Amino acid sequence: MGPGGEFDRIRSFQGLSLGESGTGGGVGSSGELPLGPGDDAAWVDGFVFSVDLAVEGIHFRRSWLSLEEVGFRAVAAAGSDLAAMASEPVGILLALALPRDLGEEELAQLRRGVGQGCEAVGGPLLGGDLSASPGPLVLDVTVVGRTSDPVLRSGAEPGDELWVTGGLGASAAAVRIQGQGHRPSPALHRAYARPRPRIQEALWLRERGVLRAMLDLSDGLAGDAGHLAAASGVAVVLEEDTLPVDPEVGAAGDVSEEEGRRLALHGGEDFELLFAAPPGSVGPDEVEGFRARFHLPLTRVGRVEAGAGVRLEPQDGSPARPLTEGGFDHFAPGGGGGG
Amino acid sequence: MGPGGEFDRIRSFQGLSLGESGTGGGVGSSGELPLGPGDDAAWVDGFVFSVDLAVEGIHFRRSWLSLEEVGFRAVAAAGSDLAAMASEPVGILLALALPRDLGEEELAQLRRGVGQGCEAVGGPLLGGDLSASPGPLVLDVTVVGRTSDPVLRSGAEPGDELWVTGGLGASAAAVRIQGQGHRPSPALHRAYARPRPRIQEALWLRERGVLRAMLDLSDGLAGDAGHLAAASGVAVVLEEDTLPVDPEVGAAGDVSEEEGRRLALHGGEDFELLFAAPPGSVGPDEVEGFRARFHLPLTRVGRVEAGAGVRLEPQDGSPARPLTEGGFDHFAPGGGGGG
Repeated sequence: MGPGGEFDRIRSFQGLSLGESGTGGGVGSSGELPLGPGDDAAWVDGFVFSVDLAVEGIHFRRSWLSLEEVGFRAVAAAGSDLAAMASEPVGILLALALPRDLGEEELAQLRRGVGQGCEAVGGPLLGGDLSASPGPLVLDVTVVGRTSDPVLRSGAEPGDELWVTGGLGASAAAVRIQGQGHRPSPALHRAYARPRPRIQEALWLRERGVLRAMLDLSDGLAGDAGHLAAASGVAVVLEEDTLPVDPEVGAAGDVSEEEGRRLALHGGEDFELLFAAPPGSVGPDEVEGFRARFHLPLTRVGRVEAGAGVRLEPQDGSPARPLTEGGFDHFAPGGGGGG
Repeated sequence: MGPGGEFDRIRSFQGLSLGESGTGGGVGSSGELPLGPGDDAAWVDGFVFSVDLAVEGIHFRRSWLSLEEVGFRAVAAAGSDLAAMASEPVGILLALALPRDLGEEELAQLRRGVGQGCEAVGGPLLGGDLSASPGPLVLDVTVVGRTSDPVLRSGAEPGDELWVTGGLGASAAAVRIQGQGHRPSPALHRAYARPRPRIQEALWLRERGVLRAMLDLSDGLAGDAGHLAAASGVAVVLEEDTLPVDPEVGAAGDVSEEEGRRLALHGGEDFELLFAAPPGSVGPDEVEGFRARFHLPLTRVGRVEAGAGVRLEPQDGSPARPLTEGGFDHFAPGGGGGG
């Protein structure tokens, strides 16, 4: 979903959130209230719920992804919301609207991808619904998780450090190259087509007590840092020289270093985790332990200060400049947003 | 979804159920296992989950329903699965794919209908996802409920009585009349456009300990009785002279008495409850109490015997004849299936 009129129209539905929609009769026997629409998932009585649509022509194109990848990606991307709240997977519900032109082999591919996506999330398919579609292929994935203590976007405090799992920008680089009519490298394609929900990573970090606030990177680091800053009532400073640009982004030579940093900041759909940790709580032992366990870097990308908004400290030493929040525009070359 | 090739293709996805799809890692800390795809909803650790798609051109037409009705119906129909398991509502997740031709006023209507649907279910909107659609309007509704003791389809025993809430056939009559190019009466249209999920009714019945097995009527009484018979490993005998045909079905004079009975048996989408009760457990006090509380009839429609399948005892006294299971075909005049 890109920014602009479409997004505004759709935003009008946000008014239909808690408290306006009904009696609230059945909620919270233990007194807990579900979280607002600002967080990655709803949380009721220890269960976490989130729903994600994948609509052909909006979120994916069949010319860019095999149906196995379509199935995998829809489930894995939805599962990323469980990671964002550091909750254990319970299971997945899948609703599919299937165009009539899909043949047996294509359905088998889709089925395989969904199964692999469930494995990546670490939960079984609990149920679903199936329908024909007179138009696009639509996958609607509901993920259910469990945690007694969800990590929210709102817990960051001035002085905290900001950390990111994995590398950034590879998925957006694949979309950009694909949008220019070229074929991305297999590694870039894989980053786009096979994102890994960082569920075990989030649970590992939670066990170490370092998660003050967290979300998964779907809109791009700059935009999602803005969400975290807004939810926590703080300012975020990103340090450009630390940006963990995925080494695959520039590997094929078709993306410049500067463009790589832009994609890492604004590209979107990395499905890595961004979290605020108390100062000093993530040390060399944690970074090394994380890398040993998950074969992924853990990178300090900035800090939390009093104030509001997101600033970038350029690596050339020039003064920090504000980053406007930029949404991620599917299929727009290089993603939406701007610095 | 009508019977036939489309349905078979879609059924192939059922193989992707529990055990094949993943590790099952996160499921059932208390040792409970989710139910199989045969029941109306999945049940995990006291929570009930179900998902229902409503796709324009497949499940509804905008020429037949206002957008307020579309929103209401999608949520209410999904909520009916909570009723089927006699579970308390916890909340609703809604994913919407919105065609670009929807204007502000239409979106407001849809929003209003969704809100009314949440009220009918008795739970708040917990969260959702919104997208543009390059094709049809798609609503995907996940309902979440809670019960420590779900009523399944599989509990019926020989000797049990079969009971139905409310009247049958009105929704299918509306579809049939509409499909013939006429306008159904306001009462018939309302039965189709504004089905009531029988959640409080189910909880009332459960309190009285009369629910041995239950499901909600979405495929028509004959077909759903077949589901109950198959899940319970019993035979079901329906008694034609007791069929609670909704009085509105014949009221406008365009549906004959015989056709009315056929619609009540095979019409589908009544969203009433069919349940098996121990013999004698539902007496005049329960019937009267139910009517006083809900302004709805409670009707004994048959009995459970040893064996398999569904038979109908015709009201003319001729021998009982087997009813083949007939699915409900959206938009096919009079629904699918046959006796």
